[in-house]
Amino acid sequence: MADKLIIFDTTLRDGEQSPGASMTRDEKLRIARQLERLKVDVIEAGFAASSNGDFDAVQLIANNIKDSTVCSLARANDRDISRAAEALKGAQQARIHTFIATSALHMEKKLRMTPDQVFEQAKQSVRFARNLVSDIEFSPEDGYRSDVDFLCRVIEAVIHEGATTINVPDTVGYAIPELYGNFIKTLRERIPNSDKAIWSVHCHNDLGMAVANSLAGVKIGGARQVECTINGLGERAGNCSLEEVVMAVKTRKDYFGLELGIDTHHILAASRMVSQTTGFVVQPNKAVVGANAFAHASGIHQDGVLKARDTYEIMRAEDVGWTANKIVLGKLSGRNAFKQRLQELGVQMESEVDVNAAFARFKELADRKSEIFDEDILALVSDESVTHVKEQYGFVSLSQHSETGERPTASIVFTVDGLEVKGASEGNGPVDASLKAIETHVKSGAEMVLYSVNAISGSTESQGEVTVRLQNSGRVVNGVGSDPDIVVASAKAYLSALNKLHSKADRVAAQG
Amino acid sequence: MADKLIIFDTTLRDGEQSPGASMTRDEKLRIARQLERLKVDVIEAGFAASSNGDFDAVQLIANNIKDSTVCSLARANDRDISRAAEALKGAQQARIHTFIATSALHMEKKLRMTPDQVFEQAKQSVRFARNLVSDIEFSPEDGYRSDVDFLCRVIEAVIHEGATTINVPDTVGYAIPELYGNFIKTLRERIPNSDKAIWSVHCHNDLGMAVANSLAGVKIGGARQVECTINGLGERAGNCSLEEVVMAVKTRKDYFGLELGIDTHHILAASRMVSQTTGFVVQPNKAVVGANAFAHASGIHQDGVLKARDTYEIMRAEDVGWTANKIVLGKLSGRNAFKQRLQELGVQMESEVDVNAAFARFKELADRKSEIFDEDILALVSDESVTHVKEQYGFVSLSQHSETGERPTASIVFTVDGLEVKGASEGNGPVDASLKAIETHVKSGAEMVLYSVNAISGSTESQGEVTVRLQNSGRVVNGVGSDPDIVVASAKAYLSALNKLHSKADRVAAQG
Repeated sequence: MADKLIIFDTTLRDGEQSPGASMTRDEKLRIARQLERLKVDVIEAGFAASSNGDFDAVQLIANNIKDSTVCSLARANDRDISRAAEALKGAQQARIHTFIATSALHMEKKLRMTPDQVFEQAKQSVRFARNLVSDIEFSPEDGYRSDVDFLCRVIEAVIHEGATTINVPDTVGYAIPELYGNFIKTLRERIPNSDKAIWSVHCHNDLGMAVANSLAGVKIGGARQVECTINGLGERAGNCSLEEVVMAVKTRKDYFGLELGIDTHHILAASRMVSQTTGFVVQPNKAVVGANAFAHASGIHQDGVLKARDTYEIMRAEDVGWTANKIVLGKLSGRNAFKQRLQELGVQMESEVDVNAAFARFKELADRKSEIFDEDILALVSDESVTHVKEQYGFVSLSQHSETGERPTASIVFTVDGLEVKGASEGNGPVDASLKAIETHVKSGAEMVLYSVNAISGSTESQGEVTVRLQNSGRVVNGVGSDPDIVVASAKAYLSALNKLHSKADRVAAQG
Repeated sequence: MADKLIIFDTTLRDGEQSPGASMTRDEKLRIARQLERLKVDVIEAGFAASSNGDFDAVQLIANNIKDSTVCSLARANDRDISRAAEALKGAQQARIHTFIATSALHMEKKLRMTPDQVFEQAKQSVRFARNLVSDIEFSPEDGYRSDVDFLCRVIEAVIHEGATTINVPDTVGYAIPELYGNFIKTLRERIPNSDKAIWSVHCHNDLGMAVANSLAGVKIGGARQVECTINGLGERAGNCSLEEVVMAVKTRKDYFGLELGIDTHHILAASRMVSQTTGFVVQPNKAVVGANAFAHASGIHQDGVLKARDTYEIMRAEDVGWTANKIVLGKLSGRNAFKQRLQELGVQMESEVDVNAAFARFKELADRKSEIFDEDILALVSDESVTHVKEQYGFVSLSQHSETGERPTASIVFTVDGLEVKGASEGNGPVDASLKAIETHVKSGAEMVLYSVNAISGSTESQGEVTVRLQNSGRVVNGVGSDPDIVVASAKAYLSALNKLHSKADRVAAQG
């Protein structure tokens, strides 16, 4: 067997911790299924002990994912670890990932514990976890800024207790490739039982070097697991980006000489799914998944590049899921063509009922729009999936008007627990008026922290996709709505966000 | 004098080459002024010989920028170099940057030249340029994929002819930090006269490692110039990002030990200006300049982080221009407060007439909106600057209506060369109807390749900022419009794009 690099995706845990990126249980399952399709080795599904919602999400994913190992984060204490084990009960392959901070700064300021206390707690937690699950990962939080002697002592002890993976996070994104690679190398050389565990890297992108740092940990340090997220999602500047690290190892196999299990053809669909679910846009000049990442996929003809593609391109766009032909379906397309296209886009519907509902919306859209693009289909399905959440509020109809010199007005009909209500308001613009019209009834008290419109194809004939992020009492949710009418899409997104705010959940923050 | 790292910004040249990122002459000057404020050492203002428009832009920037060296790109031929020298005549400090491809692939497929021909042409071009300007940079295009022996031969010869800076591009973004650093080191060690030139790195981000590669070229290779762009703008996955490379060198001064001339406080304003001008959004999880890059700047309260900021943050948001207090002005703010805020935001108006015009629009906005955010001001000014282009089309008024079950309609009044015309249309949504209403008169034949709305503050009470990208006969332009009414903003953006399409320019593509 060739040397394999394990891809550990933490989009659903570290990615979701990014302010504003919270996802519902159903959204998480949908993304987990896409990660399984990508053939990710390990899916970190959440942090079971942090909230009931997170517990449910980890459990749902553990019960449904078969091909990837499912992992839950847990602080280094018995309660967290028990909750993680409980949530993972249904998994084919389960992993518990326990962590405790080891840097002087974090031990003193955050944990208020002595190094000896941290050492003991790390050891005991791994011992406790090992009795519940055989696959145990241990992370010394802020490991890269920790004292090397102390870190060696802690890691040697947890390997002795049965930790099978040792992950060394650069929690604050402070590392430099050469230094980080040598740091991992030193640890592996100095710790007597280091060969009993697989070494893992976990890098943040604050200085723009998460991918290079991770790969130095692999090449120089000898790590064989990389922790990463789709689109580099994650707190602050995010985590190491899965698509970049995977394509670097593939493209430069001459240098890395490592095998990967990943099916790269599903990368673009995963990127879009995560972006649409969280409302975190992907910039056009983002490597691998940005709209401009491949010259010929940008829709703009460039003579030189088309003449001799390999003079400027080191990867093939098709290999990561970009398709040349963007127009896929129209009014006359049947249910089978629609279903097949969904499969090609990596979208798996939960049931035939869901396929039928999505197809009905597709036909309705095709009546209004002559060319249906992949983006339209993904928007349609994403909108569909939103309605899986037990709906308190539902969109019925909207009428709005704006005219230069007058205040814009809107009146909206929507359902509250199945009953129709009507609201009307004026506002600064027609979107503002529509959302205010909703609030005349709902009075949510929520604060809007993001309103964004992603044009999903070139022209304004396309569906507009709107993300609304609301905050209330410390909770943050995203609502997504799509419609060829941007004002209607906004109202749908707002109602969707209100529906999510309605389902309560508290959580403990974790870092790593 | 401490060892200094030269920052060479190519936002206006390599950045602008990104499909869709084209800028007008006035927009380029505005960005150049911001780069001067940032204290960038060298501004690559364009590629003078590629088009008359680019020539004018380089000339305008050369005549107006005093503190930074102004540079023009030129292919390795006498005509290109003469044009560059001519455009740079007014510059306080001028540099000519000439390039020719040296990789086997590029020489054979793109240039159809033998290595000996390339060698001769490189030598002669530098000799020719050296008689016009004393500051000469030479780039072997696709240098990183070139044969080392041949590359050494070419570089030795051009240094002998008087090249003062040698730039080694990783044109296709194929490099790995360790390899790229050692590549530069090898070249410097093997070339006898290598100490007669400053060495420079130019990396692309296709595998997500442009920043790390550039810094390895500096640390391992001994390069003392980094070529980069604001927001990492550039073809495909873009160039090395200025803000990331600068903050990495600053934050890890313990490792790099280098001085920088950059005034980092202007970074955020530069990032926003480039993003708004090109319509290239910055993703929230982008390092340094993304909305989430600093936890406490995201607008979402996070207990742990606020308690002990240094446990999770290695840079201070204030140092790159993030301000804590986002509400700055209101209805009662006077002209002086407005002008001062413009200065703090790094916006320099061309004249008092422009300040007055912007202030009038500010007052008009303040009548409709109680809290004016920095984003609103930047939008206002950006909108203002758009109108500097000789306007063929101007917005007058719009009336639009949409209602569930009916086709949305819009009627618009706008000026064509000063005369008012009226158009009406229906469409898939109110935005689509409004733009179609414009086209009933204009019949531009342009294709829309991007429509995007950037919410500039949290709530929909804010101004909406719309970017419309149009393509016609191979030309691509961006129009930006802002208004609290998103439909009006869209119409303004569309008219602005049409105005730009009107001013013709042809150009030659360059890569590097």
